[in-house]
Amino acid sequence: MVKPWRSSLVEPWQDTTLPAHVRAADLLARMTTEEKTAQLSSVWLGAEIDTGSAAVAPGQHAYAAHSAVLDALLPYGLGHLTRPFGTVPLEPTEGAARLAALQRRIRAGNRFGLPALAHEECLTGFAAWQATVFPTPLAWGATFDPALITEMAQGIGASMRAVGIHQGLAPVLDVVRDPRWGRTEEAIGEDPYLVGTIGTAYVRGLEAAGIVATLKHFAGYSASRAARNHAPAPLGPRELADVILPPFEMAVREGGARSVMPAYNDLDGLPAHAHVPLLTGILREQWQFRGTVVSDYFALSFLESAHKVAGSAADAARLALAAGVDVELPIARCLTDAEHLPEEQLDRAALRVLTQKCELGLLDPDEEPAAVDDGPVDLNPPHLRDLARKVAQESVVLLANDSGVLPLTGGPRIAVVGPLAGEQAAMLGCYTFPRHVGVNHPELPAGVDVPTFAEALPVELPDAVFVDDPAAADVCLAVVGDRSGLFGRGSSGEGCDAEDLQLPYEQGALLDEVFASGTPVVLVVLSGRPYALGRWADRAAAVVQAFFPGQEGGSAVAGVLSGRVEPSGRLPVGVPRTPGGQPAPYLAPPLGLRGDPSNVDPSALFPFGHGLSYTTFEWSAPQCDTPELSTDGETTLRLTVRNTGERPGTEVVQLYLHDPVGTVARPEIRLVGYARVPLDAGQSAQVHATFPADLAAYTGADGRRVVEPGALELRVAASSTLVHHTVPLTLTGPVREVGHERRLRCETRVK
Amino acid sequence: MVKPWRSSLVEPWQDTTLPAHVRAADLLARMTTEEKTAQLSSVWLGAEIDTGSAAVAPGQHAYAAHSAVLDALLPYGLGHLTRPFGTVPLEPTEGAARLAALQRRIRAGNRFGLPALAHEECLTGFAAWQATVFPTPLAWGATFDPALITEMAQGIGASMRAVGIHQGLAPVLDVVRDPRWGRTEEAIGEDPYLVGTIGTAYVRGLEAAGIVATLKHFAGYSASRAARNHAPAPLGPRELADVILPPFEMAVREGGARSVMPAYNDLDGLPAHAHVPLLTGILREQWQFRGTVVSDYFALSFLESAHKVAGSAADAARLALAAGVDVELPIARCLTDAEHLPEEQLDRAALRVLTQKCELGLLDPDEEPAAVDDGPVDLNPPHLRDLARKVAQESVVLLANDSGVLPLTGGPRIAVVGPLAGEQAAMLGCYTFPRHVGVNHPELPAGVDVPTFAEALPVELPDAVFVDDPAAADVCLAVVGDRSGLFGRGSSGEGCDAEDLQLPYEQGALLDEVFASGTPVVLVVLSGRPYALGRWADRAAAVVQAFFPGQEGGSAVAGVLSGRVEPSGRLPVGVPRTPGGQPAPYLAPPLGLRGDPSNVDPSALFPFGHGLSYTTFEWSAPQCDTPELSTDGETTLRLTVRNTGERPGTEVVQLYLHDPVGTVARPEIRLVGYARVPLDAGQSAQVHATFPADLAAYTGADGRRVVEPGALELRVAASSTLVHHTVPLTLTGPVREVGHERRLRCETRVK
Repeated sequence: MVKPWRSSLVEPWQDTTLPAHVRAADLLARMTTEEKTAQLSSVWLGAEIDTGSAAVAPGQHAYAAHSAVLDALLPYGLGHLTRPFGTVPLEPTEGAARLAALQRRIRAGNRFGLPALAHEECLTGFAAWQATVFPTPLAWGATFDPALITEMAQGIGASMRAVGIHQGLAPVLDVVRDPRWGRTEEAIGEDPYLVGTIGTAYVRGLEAAGIVATLKHFAGYSASRAARNHAPAPLGPRELADVILPPFEMAVREGGARSVMPAYNDLDGLPAHAHVPLLTGILREQWQFRGTVVSDYFALSFLESAHKVAGSAADAARLALAAGVDVELPIARCLTDAEHLPEEQLDRAALRVLTQKCELGLLDPDEEPAAVDDGPVDLNPPHLRDLARKVAQESVVLLANDSGVLPLTGGPRIAVVGPLAGEQAAMLGCYTFPRHVGVNHPELPAGVDVPTFAEALPVELPDAVFVDDPAAADVCLAVVGDRSGLFGRGSSGEGCDAEDLQLPYEQGALLDEVFASGTPVVLVVLSGRPYALGRWADRAAAVVQAFFPGQEGGSAVAGVLSGRVEPSGRLPVGVPRTPGGQPAPYLAPPLGLRGDPSNVDPSALFPFGHGLSYTTFEWSAPQCDTPELSTDGETTLRLTVRNTGERPGTEVVQLYLHDPVGTVARPEIRLVGYARVPLDAGQSAQVHATFPADLAAYTGADGRRVVEPGALELRVAASSTLVHHTVPLTLTGPVREVGHERRLRCETRVK
Repeated sequence: MVKPWRSSLVEPWQDTTLPAHVRAADLLARMTTEEKTAQLSSVWLGAEIDTGSAAVAPGQHAYAAHSAVLDALLPYGLGHLTRPFGTVPLEPTEGAARLAALQRRIRAGNRFGLPALAHEECLTGFAAWQATVFPTPLAWGATFDPALITEMAQGIGASMRAVGIHQGLAPVLDVVRDPRWGRTEEAIGEDPYLVGTIGTAYVRGLEAAGIVATLKHFAGYSASRAARNHAPAPLGPRELADVILPPFEMAVREGGARSVMPAYNDLDGLPAHAHVPLLTGILREQWQFRGTVVSDYFALSFLESAHKVAGSAADAARLALAAGVDVELPIARCLTDAEHLPEEQLDRAALRVLTQKCELGLLDPDEEPAAVDDGPVDLNPPHLRDLARKVAQESVVLLANDSGVLPLTGGPRIAVVGPLAGEQAAMLGCYTFPRHVGVNHPELPAGVDVPTFAEALPVELPDAVFVDDPAAADVCLAVVGDRSGLFGRGSSGEGCDAEDLQLPYEQGALLDEVFASGTPVVLVVLSGRPYALGRWADRAAAVVQAFFPGQEGGSAVAGVLSGRVEPSGRLPVGVPRTPGGQPAPYLAPPLGLRGDPSNVDPSALFPFGHGLSYTTFEWSAPQCDTPELSTDGETTLRLTVRNTGERPGTEVVQLYLHDPVGTVARPEIRLVGYARVPLDAGQSAQVHATFPADLAAYTGADGRRVVEPGALELRVAASSTLVHHTVPLTLTGPVREVGHERRLRCETRVK
């Protein structure tokens, strides 16, 4: 038996003047193998007994009861506490007190007095009862507003930190490849640059609040075959490097994210949780990532039961640890089954966990891990509701308004139809507490006010007359889209994949009827993914798209219809014309996109980056200070955008790169910069965009990531297809191989 | 100017006692750069002026007029002649005479007296007017009968050789990955082993007739994104090695194929026509391929215009030649634009072409290249029609017959409905002459007799009464499926991709009506791909599937309905339940296939290998002589199959491999052997299957192709889901890396 360590002196690991990794290494050297293993372990209290409820994670009912028991772990310590707020509804003040008490028990149980690191979901805000519900990430993408997303994430993080949470399992940086995937709503968009910049903005906010951000799912989850959840991702190394990985690289290098979660899927056969080149070669060696890699829930068990690359739970643990996974979530099953883990690998993982705990203050003897005072906790305070409202408002996309019917003015007779008009589930993503956990507790209210569209609209339009019959109305608002849910309990969300992109719940037939009435129809889509609208778009008086806009979403969408809110969102994913023909063609090279070789035209009905305003803008021709630049140089474009209409409005200036000739087939265009430009009527602003040649880098025929000399085109555009100006550039000098030093973004300023 | 070479002596290149490559090398040494380049060039007479007709190749109208002109090439010689029979309808005797005259002109034009190598399409038989039209390759797959396919190909090849053709652009060895691809009908199936064995059988037959077989499309064409023609193939190296390449390896190593055509698509960004690792590393170095690589039509031009990896036509030629392409088809455009090609690469390609010409006898001074006598040519003789009938009959798949309505007996009142019942285009694949070229000449008859289903049925059922109204019939035959065509001119065929797998031409609505009539419905599907039948399968009295069964297809399908023909086909591709959710799940590993992580269940309605008979069979438990074998060993299974019914019938014994644990995720099962077992009523036969451990090889986590020790399961089955017996095996010994020596097939014998 190991003799309990006791001392009245401050040992190096307790010395707050020393660097975290030095303190962690000192502590590690004092630990037994069992204590080290315990730091890689986790416990999910409450999940093991709750087999009657709907699962919130795949494999939960199969594995949750097989967790190592907290009491047995206590003498050795505990790495992670899983979802202390997101398992059952807890009144926030009581939840914080419970967590603090549990941490006291954990600290008292081990000889070093170490608490556990408590993690929670925070994809659409803190996933706790009565916490503010923010828009889903696809809506963050639609804002094209990184600064606002940082502010939102910092607010979310502060509320989590205040009740004792240390790590948040967000953001999702999967690039949308096929919107049939149920988790499309959890992703930010289909362009790696948009995902990278918005995702990194979120990471910065969360980390600024002292919460460890977790980048997920690393990598390729969104590229699964037929967009089925967990299905294999048929990825080659170039698509992986140039499409899937860039957002992760940016969030690690520029966002300072301190944790990464591997994906459930395999990449060309090799499961991400056992993927040495990905978790060690790319993440640790190329990107110099220093944080922790935490497994996705039950994913170590899946190495045995589903991927079948491990013959036992212990083998699964060995594979994952060797590849670079540090912590098994949400329970300790495989790791605690595995005896004789290689000491060097065990030390490596435990050192990472202890270093992070040290950074979080959890090695400080006087730390109260759940930093609560005795006062009541409010997880839905006014400043978070304001942020939720701002994000929601900026995320609503006006797709079409040819008729000019919007904004609705005067006192029109309005018919509101569609099953989602009165539905909270059309506002809330699948990781919101009400849809994620609340569905298991129908006896409880949602915890926050979530006005539906039908409830919000009359507030916005006090003079409108609401009628039931579309034939008797001046305008019919047809509200269609999704109900979020998990594992088949909704039409969008984790485990709610679609076979095609037709509107679910037979809403297409409903729309056919509504359009047959002859009343002008405004199509309002509240959804977690884009749906095929080609059948009605030409006949619709207007089309408005919002992606699960959160608790303030009803008023945001209704506010756009009334004109109180100027529409300023832009599509983070294309809206297709027809339901089939997926995956989507965005980022495809030219071959296979056009009419000659294939009769299928996959081009979007409303393309990436598209979105209208109630006002009009004029763009000056851009001035380019250096049309010729070296392969390690940069150039700056300047252009003026003027609001030429009579209302305020926001233009989103988008910069796309077209590279005429390369050593491999490349996307016809990809986003390399953007700026939101809010302008009063008649006002103008100058946009400066500094484009570093590094952004032209791609992975060539020989597998190296290079910037090549030659001709380029920057397309200055209002969407991926609406190009206002083309700026030819010439790169000069040698082929430049780029590595860790590569500049990752175009700096934009609006004056 | 080079002085014309003249000698009365026999020079080494003319000496028929020397090996072909020695003669070719001698000839090459005498050639100028222009003469070498000419051997890599081709001319497509007739195509350049025919811009008013529907194109038969992508890019034809854009590029065909840019060909080097024959007269300009003549002094240097000519590599290939493109489609002398398949461009416009030619009466066969006249066509042979014209080709012979043209070859005399080509020989007379160059100082060595060399003719061109004439190539033709032969995917469904010789693509010439009045030539026998065979079933499409998907039907060959359905026969599970390699011996018959060899016989067919030999017959096709002999008829081509007799009129002066040297090379046939078949077979297509693309493994079906997503049946939305329009060219699914041209492929053999979705299992690499089935594609490899049937495809190799075809190659052996064609080569035995003296025709150079061309393996296409190398590689990954069928794995294109969203199954769009020419779209990028997002393939990783393991899927490429274990799914896409095995049929090509078998056809090269075991079939002796002498030509390979690269694919139009890119693989993870790198176009196949510029893919050094594929065309040189794998094909030449690993597989020791010694033949020619001929470009797909206009594919060199596409390197410039569509893939955009070349800045000019000349650059495209340089890239392709460097990668390992030897001949530019169907015209000389890029190659003749390219000056200063590296002499070593030019020599390499020219030597391959000349060696092949030597093997074909084209370097022999007294060779008459078009070996015709003066008699009339018959391209549709009785023995070819017999072969076409046999293949068609063996390819018809009885999918369901729960009601026992089939075979139709007595004198039933029959209603035949559906747009394809009276349609020749439902019998003929897109590469048949009538559908490929004949559509441009509506004034001409098809050239061969192609009875439609409606025409063939009364012959089979002389006592039946045909009525128009389904309500007045005993049974309604609903004939649905495809019309073949090219580039959007049909519902199946090259460039006729589908967005999903719903029946085209709104035939689904027709079926809904027919089923509503209450009359028992036999669903007859004549198509080029599987279609989703889940909406009707439970209500159908029987379901019969045939894949474009050729000119004898009408009587074959009608013969199965009447019972004259015993149904014996098996599905080479699964028939899906629902139209969406593609790509297909066959060969997927277990994760992502089942209900827990995804709500989408992609399992087939009728799975790969499925097919019924009118009789019943009993399978004995297999005896295994060595359940434990070394990683380089083999074992033999023996089982007895007995026809327990009262009619003759054919069972197809299928052997699937299940590998419980590996270093990467692998298919749950894959086919590793099969045997057709025709049995009279009451008869039994013993099936011997010798399984070499090499068939368990797969590409592991480190990229090496290995056979690993450990547990395996052989599943002895009547389809991929109907397993009769499971045979556990244990592989012993060291991990065995397999290369060129790997055994590629399970030897089966039926006694």
